[in-house]
Amino acid sequence: MRLSRFFLSTQRQTPKDAETVSHRLCIKSGLLNALSAGIFSYLPLGLMALRKIENIIREYMNMYDGQEVLLPALQPLEIWQKTGRDKVLEEIMFTFKDRRGRDICLGPTHEEVITDLAKKFISSYKQMPVILYQIQTKFRDEIRPKAGLVRSCEFIMKDAYSFDRDQEGLNLSYSKMKEAYQNIFRECGLPAIILGADTGAMGGSESEEFLVKGESGEDKVFFCPNCGRYFKQRGSCPVCAAQLEEINALEIGHIFKLGTKYSQALGAYFLDADGRRKEIIMGCYGIGVSRLIPAVIENNYDQEGIIWPKKIAPFDVEILVLGQAEDLVSYSRELYGKISSLNYDVLLDDRNESVGVKFNDAYLLGMPYLFVLGKGSFSQGKVEIVFRKNKQKILVNKESVLDWARDYLRK
Amino acid sequence: MRLSRFFLSTQRQTPKDAETVSHRLCIKSGLLNALSAGIFSYLPLGLMALRKIENIIREYMNMYDGQEVLLPALQPLEIWQKTGRDKVLEEIMFTFKDRRGRDICLGPTHEEVITDLAKKFISSYKQMPVILYQIQTKFRDEIRPKAGLVRSCEFIMKDAYSFDRDQEGLNLSYSKMKEAYQNIFRECGLPAIILGADTGAMGGSESEEFLVKGESGEDKVFFCPNCGRYFKQRGSCPVCAAQLEEINALEIGHIFKLGTKYSQALGAYFLDADGRRKEIIMGCYGIGVSRLIPAVIENNYDQEGIIWPKKIAPFDVEILVLGQAEDLVSYSRELYGKISSLNYDVLLDDRNESVGVKFNDAYLLGMPYLFVLGKGSFSQGKVEIVFRKNKQKILVNKESVLDWARDYLRK
Repeated sequence: MRLSRFFLSTQRQTPKDAETVSHRLCIKSGLLNALSAGIFSYLPLGLMALRKIENIIREYMNMYDGQEVLLPALQPLEIWQKTGRDKVLEEIMFTFKDRRGRDICLGPTHEEVITDLAKKFISSYKQMPVILYQIQTKFRDEIRPKAGLVRSCEFIMKDAYSFDRDQEGLNLSYSKMKEAYQNIFRECGLPAIILGADTGAMGGSESEEFLVKGESGEDKVFFCPNCGRYFKQRGSCPVCAAQLEEINALEIGHIFKLGTKYSQALGAYFLDADGRRKEIIMGCYGIGVSRLIPAVIENNYDQEGIIWPKKIAPFDVEILVLGQAEDLVSYSRELYGKISSLNYDVLLDDRNESVGVKFNDAYLLGMPYLFVLGKGSFSQGKVEIVFRKNKQKILVNKESVLDWARDYLRK
Repeated sequence: MRLSRFFLSTQRQTPKDAETVSHRLCIKSGLLNALSAGIFSYLPLGLMALRKIENIIREYMNMYDGQEVLLPALQPLEIWQKTGRDKVLEEIMFTFKDRRGRDICLGPTHEEVITDLAKKFISSYKQMPVILYQIQTKFRDEIRPKAGLVRSCEFIMKDAYSFDRDQEGLNLSYSKMKEAYQNIFRECGLPAIILGADTGAMGGSESEEFLVKGESGEDKVFFCPNCGRYFKQRGSCPVCAAQLEEINALEIGHIFKLGTKYSQALGAYFLDADGRRKEIIMGCYGIGVSRLIPAVIENNYDQEGIIWPKKIAPFDVEILVLGQAEDLVSYSRELYGKISSLNYDVLLDDRNESVGVKFNDAYLLGMPYLFVLGKGSFSQGKVEIVFRKNKQKILVNKESVLDWARDYLRK
């Protein structure tokens, strides 16, 4: 993509209503635009990061036996009345009547809908285990939306649901999902903390939360600087008795052993090998997909801007052309084409802007590698490569640039 | 994917409330499930077809200079009041108040939101032309949802918007989009009819509709069997005076030259090269993405089921193993792995079902190529390949099957 034609506009000013670093950087770097409080549009750059995150999630969900579906946002309130959760979640659900007179809600989660689906499609133990997941837009009527994508009224989640014939099956499905989550968060550059948690509005017997440190975090966790463990409770470390440090943490995933709460309420039964009718044993597994963007930024930034982890950077490489000299410009296009042909996403800053503006924007946008074509080094047959993470610079011969890209870009 | 582990359940019975062939086939082949009238879940098979359609659309939108964004479904009613369309579309919009007291609607379209975005980000003629598009879920409060995905309350659209400095620019953007649409519909196996149309609730000076023949069609078009042209009006053919035939047609796309209707109402101005402040000239371009599934089916089916066009078939190949003989089963897995490794999507019917059930399901599901491993032909070292479209059969030597796949599958 040529930056001169890209729908992007970075902001010099710090947005007034953005109270956290990730919210500020999302707006300043042109990832997002606020339509209204808690309601955002993803601009092309933000959508690219979002899609890379979604694809990492898909890759691991499929690897761990998940099958993708897409469930509706509009849901008849009737199925929520069967589980009693119309009351439990009343304060955050958008509800209204449609023109046919039906009571409708916008789904803040999908346990009821998926259980209704399982009821229709699963009748025998032979059809299980099954894990279904979706990456879909959810809605919460937030009275106080905050911190950009951290707490918004419309957001994207990955929600998965497992269906098993017995507790042993559930344990296995649960451990698969836990392993998938560890892989997903690692690939996204997020050092996740896993802690036992309350089951809350979901219900069930057991749950674990995935959290990351972050200014936007609404949870508190407690860290032992001596033994390196994390805890939910304040107090001295139960393992080594050292004093604990309080840390802001942001919930990015949550996995639950639900048991039969939903299958019982909605009548999702199966015939087991022994000929008996039993309730399907369920688990549910959520990732706050859009929330991963602020979570990633809060764990990967510096004074000058975002430092995208390689796997989810909107572009792998940004080429900065410093000046409008003809040979420089023509080489920049050649290099752009060649690196693109290696299946890397490349942004070419071909704008007629000063060196300062180009570097400021490049550091703000935060692509992992900056290929700088400057008059001085170019006349000596060199390209300067800047590593965004530590701003280390190396000079590479023009003839070797493509080999360098091929060998090092994804490492 | 092994069919024995795939979340799929085909139905022998014709669903009662499905009044059109595409609705019946969507339910019988397990593409969709109805949660409630006009509200559907995409099962894994249906989502695969949907994703292939979406990716064809993306490919051509990007090729013709589109940049992808993602706009919110929740919209403050306030921006609709500025264009007066809160009244024009009142009868089909879901509207409600949120907990903060704001009047909110669920977007049935996004001209207002995108114009608000253009207002914030486009200030100079140098930033245009720009074409932005999204593939996103839209909502209509349908009093009479019908024909499955043809008229549902929640559906997926591709909506694109062009921004230009003058009429000449708009004409060029419009012709790009028209060309993109012709490519997209061709790739989806849809012979689109293009006709001039009313601009209706969108407004603007000019519009063209893309339609396909189909039982679910709510529009009437008139066909001249003599000269092959289509018309909007009944009457004898204005070109050759022959008698016209009435045909049911389904709208699958619509493109509009909007002009300044929205930029004027919402104040989206730019500074032109002559230093004057002018209104941005807009166009908008829609494709009913989820509706393409019934449109494709109604144009590609026979008595036994769906005949997926190659580019949007959920799987390229289905392997049918007839019987449970060990050598047959082990070869089927080997073949599955090898064809998959050529980057084709393969479905392996490894269920313990009769020959009749397997063929019935395979014809119903409608993958373009069936690779049949039967005892008789297999003992002679042959694999039978059935072309779903015309049920033509050929025998290929086991040793040559992979070469055949490599040479012919995508042709």
